[in-house]
Order: sequence, then C-alpha cells, then structure tokens
Amino acid sequence: MPKKTATKPSDETSATKAARTRERILDAAAHVLSRKGFAGTRLSDVAVQAELQAPAIYYYFSSREDLIEEVMWAGLARMHQHLQAALDALPAELDPMDRLMAAVDEHLRYQLSISDYATAAIRNSGQLPEKIRSRQLVEENTYGDIWRDLVDDVRRAGQLRDDLDPRTARMLVLGALSWTAEWWNPLRGSLDELVRTAQSLVRHGLAPVPQGEGGGTAQAAGQKARTRRKSAPAA
Amino acid sequence: MPKKTATKPSDETSATKAARTRERILDAAAHVLSRKGFAGTRLSDVAVQAELQAPAIYYYFSSREDLIEEVMWAGLARMHQHLQAALDALPAELDPMDRLMAAVDEHLRYQLSISDYATAAIRNSGQLPEKIRSRQLVEENTYGDIWRDLVDDVRRAGQLRDDLDPRTARMLVLGALSWTAEWWNPLRGSLDELVRTAQSLVRHGLAPVPQGEGGGTAQAAGQKARTRRKSAPAA
Repeated sequence: MPKKTATKPSDETSATKAARTRERILDAAAHVLSRKGFAGTRLSDVAVQAELQAPAIYYYFSSREDLIEEVMWAGLARMHQHLQAALDALPAELDPMDRLMAAVDEHLRYQLSISDYATAAIRNSGQLPEKIRSRQLVEENTYGDIWRDLVDDVRRAGQLRDDLDPRTARMLVLGALSWTAEWWNPLRGSLDELVRTAQSLVRHGLAPVPQGEGGGTAQAAGQKARTRRKSAPAA
Repeated sequence: MPKKTATKPSDETSATKAARTRERILDAAAHVLSRKGFAGTRLSDVAVQAELQAPAIYYYFSSREDLIEEVMWAGLARMHQHLQAALDALPAELDPMDRLMAAVDEHLRYQLSISDYATAAIRNSGQLPEKIRSRQLVEENTYGDIWRDLVDDVRRAGQLRDDLDPRTARMLVLGALSWTAEWWNPLRGSLDELVRTAQSLVRHGLAPVPQGEGGGTAQAAGQKARTRRKSAPAA
C-alpha cells in the first residue's frame, strides 16, 4: 500500500503541502505511464515531470510498483466516486433513460478531463503484474456494477429494446465511451459535441423504436423486420 | 522489415513448411504479446508457445522488435483485407445501412477469431517504440478509411440521424467494436448474440427516428425533444 501521509506533518500547512506534492507525483506518473507504458515508466521521468528530485518520490511511495498501482487504481476509483456522486445528486423522479444519459455525460467529461489516468489505465491493463492487476479488476467490476444497475433500470422501465441482450449492450456502450481516451482530440471537435453525439447514439441505440398508432407503426415495424432479415448478409 | 521467406526453400514443400512455421511463430508471438505485453514478451516464451527452439525464430525474423512489429501490424492488416474482401463481395444494390451492418458482423467475427492479434494490438498500442507505432498508425488510418466511407454512404443515403456528427459517431462505433477484444467471453454469450446486439445498437443508434404519418410522429418527435432537453441534466 502506498504511504498515505508525509511523516512529519508538523502543522496544517505542511500536511496540505505534502498532500499536494503527493498529488503532483501521481499526476506526473499518470502522464508518463499513459505515454511510455508500464515497462517504460522510470521514476526519473516522473520526477522531471513533477519537478522534484527522484529520491523525493520514495518519501510518498514505497516503490515504483506502488506508485504505478496507485495511478492505475486512482483513475478508476476517482471516476467511480465521481459518477456515483453525480447520480446521487440527480432528481429522484428522473426517468432511467435520462439517468443513463447523465452517466454518459459524466463518464466522458470526467474520463477525458483526467485523461492521463484513463489512458494509463486503458493502455496498461494488459501489462501489469498480477498483484496490481487484481486490485484494478476489483475496481473495474465495481464501476461496471453502476452501469449494470443503470441499464437494468432502463430495461425495467420498458426503455430497452427487446432484441438487445442487456449485458452485451452495456459492455458495447462502455467500450464506445472508454475508447474515446484513445482517439478523442479537442482540436478536432468539442467535448460538448462528443457528449451530444454519444448520448444520442446510446439513447437511440437502446430505446424501443417508437410505435405510433397510425402510419408510424408500419414504418417502425418495417425497419425492425429489415434489421432482422438483412442485417448480416455476408455472415 | 521482417524477412518474408526462409533462405533455403529448395522446393515447394519446404517453402510451404517455412511459411507454416513463420505463421506458427507469429501466432505464438501474438498469444504471448496479448498476455504479457510489449516489455514482458520474451523470445523464449514465444519459442515454447510455438514448440520450437528460440534461436530458430531468428531464421524468420531478424530481431524481437521485427517479430513484434509484424504481429502488431498483421492483426490490423488482416482485418483490413478481410473486411475489404467481404464488402467487395456484397451485392452492389445492398443499401448503405445494410453494408454497414455487414461490416459490423465481419469486424466482430474476424477480430474475435484472431483475438490474440487484436488484443495484442489494442493492449500494446501505447507501449511501442516510435518506429513500430508509426507503421501501425498508417494501417489504423487505412482501416478507419473503410469505415469513414461506409458511414459517409449511410449519411448520403439519408440513413444517418442529423443530430450526429459523422466522424464522432463512427469512432464511437469502432470503439464499441474494438473494445470487445477486452471483455467478450464465449462462455458468457454466443458470438451470434454479440453480433446481433451490436448490429441492432449501431443501426438504431445511427438511423433517423421513423416519422409516421399518424400517431407515430408525435411519439417520435416527443422522444427527440426529450433527448435534446433533458439529456444532460447534471452537466
């Protein structure tokens, strides 16, 4: 486990300063790890990025592995806490699909604002020694549980199309969101636009096709039939 | 560049045998690389997996880096060739959305059937020395171009909802598909089910909401208005 505090916080100010330094080291490590990968991450590079001497890192983290473990875990844990707090703050009467839309919004904005952590976690998940990996898997599952509940609520409210497997649909959605850390570039489009397109794609991707009383029914039914009949012509 | 042939293919049989051995080494390297990562991939492990002596690998690949480069590139290049051939074989009159559905099908089945290569490529893309990475980026862009054309055709045919940014929608879809290499497990659901759910999610995620002549219109319009108004309550 990483050391949580500096050893000599003689007063409020030095404790605060120690916490800030620890945070700066974590940010620097996330930066290096997201670019150089697990094997390529050297404490000397982290120190340069954090603007301190390499030995100072050992004042806060007992080893290189401890530091990397904390980075890998911190990205997911922060995202998890952030999303849970955001969902808790939503009005209780909000319908399940709108809650899911809020989660898409929060996930994207948070992931891309802490993108060094997210990219480090995504790119290095297959690189880690078993000990680090297992702690991360627990956190991944906890995060996935929030999304399972969100999609289950959507399904129970009759807002999930019945041709979708709920787990598969949820994992495809999470994949679409997670992968943005690999390609999204603020120079090629705004975060607002990304959030809007993702929300629309997820909402319409999951929701039942509107069944009108009049001509709408035939068209909606026709579209569904076409999906079933011709969707995999080359399979 | 990796060596393409064995040095002494004295006849058809030995040339064929050499090609098979080279393929076996690539498969073994993809297997190890997808599990151990770039830094953790040792030629001795590849040799064990390929059931040959480690020095024999140098008969086919000039270095560890050459072998890894070929694995990273081969997964994408094969996927690309496979998808292009599958699309070329489709009936010319197939409508653009159905072509896109065929591409979803082909991508998933091929990616998950060559999953060691796909997982190796996905998990290690951030780990590679610049030289290997740049060749892979070219191949990624070429593959992305196929999807750009598919989505462009869908848009031109009026089959893309007008609130979606085409590039963003395409990248979200590719993310959903690519990420399956990280989570899909044949023990928890069939490949057919995954393909069906992905096709349905993508089709309805992209397609315009059916606009019926009768009561359907109001419901479809109501859903769209709700998307716009309340989609990001906590943003």
